[in-house]
Amino acid sequence: MNFKSDNVVGIQPAIIDAILKANVGAANSYGKDPSSDELKIKCSELFETDVAVYLTNTGTAANCLGLSALAKPYETICCHQEAHINTDECGALGLFTGGAKLVTFPGENGKIDLNALTQYIDGASLHHPHGGKPSSISISQATECGTVYKLQELQAISEFAKSRGLSLHMDGARFANSLVTLNCSPAEATWKAGVDVMTFGATKNGTMAGEAIIFFNQKYAEGFDYIHMRAGQLASKMRFFSCQFLAYLEDNRWLKNASHANTMAQKLLTLFNHHGIKAKYPVEANELFVTLSKETAEHLRSNGVGFYDWGLPGNGLYRFLTSCFTNDHDIESLRDLF
Amino acid sequence: MNFKSDNVVGIQPAIIDAILKANVGAANSYGKDPSSDELKIKCSELFETDVAVYLTNTGTAANCLGLSALAKPYETICCHQEAHINTDECGALGLFTGGAKLVTFPGENGKIDLNALTQYIDGASLHHPHGGKPSSISISQATECGTVYKLQELQAISEFAKSRGLSLHMDGARFANSLVTLNCSPAEATWKAGVDVMTFGATKNGTMAGEAIIFFNQKYAEGFDYIHMRAGQLASKMRFFSCQFLAYLEDNRWLKNASHANTMAQKLLTLFNHHGIKAKYPVEANELFVTLSKETAEHLRSNGVGFYDWGLPGNGLYRFLTSCFTNDHDIESLRDLF
Amino acid sequence: MNFKSDNVVGIQPAIIDAILKANVGAANSYGKDPSSDELKIKCSELFETDVAVYLTNTGTAANCLGLSALAKPYETICCHQEAHINTDECGALGLFTGGAKLVTFPGENGKIDLNALTQYIDGASLHHPHGGKPSSISISQATECGTVYKLQELQAISEFAKSRGLSLHMDGARFANSLVTLNCSPAEATWKAGVDVMTFGATKNGTMAGEAIIFFNQKYAEGFDYIHMRAGQLASKMRFFSCQFLAYLEDNRWLKNASHANTMAQKLLTLFNHHGIKAKYPVEANELFVTLSKETAEHLRSNGVGFYDWGLPGNGLYRFLTSCFTNDHDIESLRDLF
Amino acid sequence: MNFKSDNVVGIQPAIIDAILKANVGAANSYGKDPSSDELKIKCSELFETDVAVYLTNTGTAANCLGLSALAKPYETICCHQEAHINTDECGALGLFTGGAKLVTFPGENGKIDLNALTQYIDGASLHHPHGGKPSSISISQATECGTVYKLQELQAISEFAKSRGLSLHMDGARFANSLVTLNCSPAEATWKAGVDVMTFGATKNGTMAGEAIIFFNQKYAEGFDYIHMRAGQLASKMRFFSCQFLAYLEDNRWLKNASHANTMAQKLLTLFNHHGIKAKYPVEANELFVTLSKETAEHLRSNGVGFYDWGLPGNGLYRFLTSCFTNDHDIESLRDLF
Repeated sequence: MNFKSDNVVGIQPAIIDAILKANVGAANSYGKDPSSDELKIKCSELFETDVAVYLTNTGTAANCLGLSALAKPYETICCHQEAHINTDECGALGLFTGGAKLVTFPGENGKIDLNALTQYIDGASLHHPHGGKPSSISISQATECGTVYKLQELQAISEFAKSRGLSLHMDGARFANSLVTLNCSPAEATWKAGVDVMTFGATKNGTMAGEAIIFFNQKYAEGFDYIHMRAGQLASKMRFFSCQFLAYLEDNRWLKNASHANTMAQKLLTLFNHHGIKAKYPVEANELFVTLSKETAEHLRSNGVGFYDWGLPGNGLYRFLTSCFTNDHDIESLRDLF
Repeated sequence: MNFKSDNVVGIQPAIIDAILKANVGAANSYGKDPSSDELKIKCSELFETDVAVYLTNTGTAANCLGLSALAKPYETICCHQEAHINTDECGALGLFTGGAKLVTFPGENGKIDLNALTQYIDGASLHHPHGGKPSSISISQATECGTVYKLQELQAISEFAKSRGLSLHMDGARFANSLVTLNCSPAEATWKAGVDVMTFGATKNGTMAGEAIIFFNQKYAEGFDYIHMRAGQLASKMRFFSCQFLAYLEDNRWLKNASHANTMAQKLLTLFNHHGIKAKYPVEANELFVTLSKETAEHLRSNGVGFYDWGLPGNGLYRFLTSCFTNDHDIESLRDLF
Repeated sequence: MNFKSDNVVGIQPAIIDAILKANVGAANSYGKDPSSDELKIKCSELFETDVAVYLTNTGTAANCLGLSALAKPYETICCHQEAHINTDECGALGLFTGGAKLVTFPGENGKIDLNALTQYIDGASLHHPHGGKPSSISISQATECGTVYKLQELQAISEFAKSRGLSLHMDGARFANSLVTLNCSPAEATWKAGVDVMTFGATKNGTMAGEAIIFFNQKYAEGFDYIHMRAGQLASKMRFFSCQFLAYLEDNRWLKNASHANTMAQKLLTLFNHHGIKAKYPVEANELFVTLSKETAEHLRSNGVGFYDWGLPGNGLYRFLTSCFTNDHDIESLRDLF
Repeated sequence: MNFKSDNVVGIQPAIIDAILKANVGAANSYGKDPSSDELKIKCSELFETDVAVYLTNTGTAANCLGLSALAKPYETICCHQEAHINTDECGALGLFTGGAKLVTFPGENGKIDLNALTQYIDGASLHHPHGGKPSSISISQATECGTVYKLQELQAISEFAKSRGLSLHMDGARFANSLVTLNCSPAEATWKAGVDVMTFGATKNGTMAGEAIIFFNQKYAEGFDYIHMRAGQLASKMRFFSCQFLAYLEDNRWLKNASHANTMAQKLLTLFNHHGIKAKYPVEANELFVTLSKETAEHLRSNGVGFYDWGLPGNGLYRFLTSCFTNDHDIESLRDLF
């Protein structure tokens, strides 16, 4: 019963199979192999537009390298104050962008407050050049609170971005989980809603490693072959990463996995609610935040249930995550502990 | 009647004289001249301890280079949300530190809230290595609100810093103005209160150009000859910058100038109060923030009074600054406009 | 018959098995799993000293991150002009070191010329601070010419480094191949010969991905948890990378693989010599450089033999690489084409 | 008799006068003053085309910031191996470009060898993306050997640059001295010969401080307001730097100064030749390199003659520089020492 994260689990059998199948003979290194070529085609089909695709080893690299294509070193990037790029990526954004400045904003349920954002952007133009030049907005979908931006909310942000000449980045580490909830096409949830570049996550949804940077707006991909290589992200045996992503997309595996994880989160929610424990945020993906008494938390942990403390030390908030590996038995075992 | 800033004014005659006197014959370039050597001695005498001194052309360079000696690229720097390094230096911190992350905090009267700071620092240690490593606290003295940290307030911050292994940086662009208010020795206001590195401002207090980075804790100055040179800040004819700073320190000129500016700010405050206009923050240095009606602001400006809009667009807040050049005639002329 | 590189081949079955075995249940993410812990112990045993170990996804990341721990941004790094970090890593060194300067030197057989190096280092100290501060020497073992530094040669370099206060980095992408040739212990070939930090390659010798940065001198590992994370190299499911490296070390697999590859290179050399084709450099590892007529090169390629052009365009030089997958049949098939 | 450098001398009286005249009343800070506006107009007139102009405090900042506008962090910059940006700017290029890689080339008389350059550029395109992307060529005019590129030589380089999509940067720290020798218009020596961006030096030719970055090709100036500010180079009291440059250009002062310095260098050459000492390179500007016996060098120095050792330690090569301050008395005094 490990609900710590969707990355504590293993590799889905179908993904392992893909690695085994790819392990035949020689293939050009550094992404010039057939699987890597195929991945570009499959992603373009999936998103119904020509996209550029680059695989990285981690979500941190995918987010920060993708953003480095949007923001010049003297520009600023706007995000929610709980965004992964702000709280969990240890200054990687500073490294990969060459020192671009992150400006953070509050907002309910992990969604950036558009009013606060507007005030900052409009003020910055009056303070040229001292305050830096706003460049991009980065949002997480699903958010770090386990909520999902509705299409209208995405549209409002992207319209604002366009009106101010800003680009739009999406941290889609859990894009699959959000898409299941939105119940629309991948295209509708991304470039049709104004997203320029996205981190398309896979590791938290069944693969071993490999997050894709997807450029919907290919003008931002100029020079990215070099940027990707220079960041130490061009794996020599790239075929073994590309093949995972192909298997991930095949047969809608990525959506089936996410759907399963979301369903499990709902079961978890039902269980908590049954015991009078409310979720702090709407549960719209595979994450659940609850306030537990110290006794309850310790009781669960001493019985082998894994989950993280969240937020400020001692505030009693905990995070539970479900994944494609979470099963009814896990939920039932947890139920038995109440 | 230009109250826009203390850098819209010119060069004090005594500083000009120093430049003229220095302009005799040849001298070694790149800071190996006698004036530059003398400056180090004078600063050590002034601060009653051996200090390392580096001159830069701007306050931005002085702040961000100084901080680059405290924080490694993967570390974080903490400051008030209105700190100059956050709002006015266009990502220079990102450039000179190689991408270190700035974390900002609220706090009354431009002074960092120690509780909020403590929560962040103590939380970061639980989130290793994802959240980055807190390294330094940077405070402005005088603050960006024209207030002055009292010695006990400085002491509280530096004690906290020491308890958590953090270093302490002071943006002293208006250090002279704060020292006049504190009415203590330069040593008491800096290293005796726990400051490791300071930007010692002069340009806003009568010189042409040249802000000094003062290392009280010389372990942070290791390699700084290179860092200073590499930042394009080692002027070839350094003697003409060093001589300005020497003249600035001579005969307590720097303190007399600051004392004058502070006095003028009080006169301005009296004038505003007389007309029922309150200052937003305590006036403890040479800055005054007032809310004016649109009509009043326009009336003053149309009569040649210079001052800046401040904060969010349209909020009615304005900033008035006095300097060593502000005189009673300026105040009287302003009075006549009410 | 693909001799293009030792990274065009696949994953050794024993390494695949290790991945399959690791794929059981949940494990802490971000390197806090048992395999990652075990790897540190195994590496310390192997090298007969306490080492710090960090896995990266690529050799570029391993080299440049490792060097970033040795050289500050204002320092210079010295290497042979054909070093991989100079010719093949697309400015990654500039990224990860924050702009440290690479200074390159000639030298026979891919080995840095110690006289030229000495002249530069001793001249730099006279040119403080303008010329930058020499920090580190980086050597490739085996070299980019397929030769191997003898222990006495290593010792001479490290003694020079120590005498000038420089650190020593080894790009060991093909360390296994060199060690087989040196026929000494891993300790003797590294820290006992003065190496401070090494890239310990595995991908070119049978694994899927994962190069280890090994800190023999642990003072350089200070803060490296953050540096590694910030570079986007801390894989969430690290267990699947650590397990590969463990299997690689198990039963001397890494040395057996390298020994096999080296033997195959000798067979290739014999074949070429038999046809009057001399190798450009001594063949001491698994690389062979030969000058072929245009006709011969085209004949071989049109019959399915893969190998790279090398050096300046049109110079007739070609590189052949062998690996743990190269077999006698490959050599025989090549022989039949002459 | 100080021939160490053209920056050991003082400030020309006319430049001092300009500073005194500018020191009247208040003026907008940060380059929004009338002198700074006027400087842009004057430079456009001088170069007979609309240029963008940015002043920096040092030549290092001017060179490296200017180049940062030409080369992206993943690109490479090509220069002569004796270029100031390679030997004397302590990694500033790495700082300001965010880690772009410098590739150096040999060449007679300080002029880059076009054949070697061509081989590198054409080879790089075959090695995408591993070798990085060539971006720019930087040349020094006058060169670091005191020679001057002829217009045909400039043209040949810029034609090559254009044919390969590269931009062209000129380090004109001693542009005035070269222009006197070329005896053509500033336009002919720069943008008409294909130069995109130039460092226009003044400090070594009579001013106190202030080197101008001149963008002939204004597409490269996009965002430069921010880049300049972020680098700590936007002086608050900019009028005192702009006024120097205006006085420098007035009445052809810059060319008269340079002409004088060049003439003095010829007199020095005549003196040396008379004593059987040949210059190492053609003396085409204000620099002279000679090999002296240890005895001669010591004799001169013990009699108060200042000059630098040059090149590798102990090689007997020395550099003599003349400036607008060097006079016949200096030459005569030196003559008397032989």
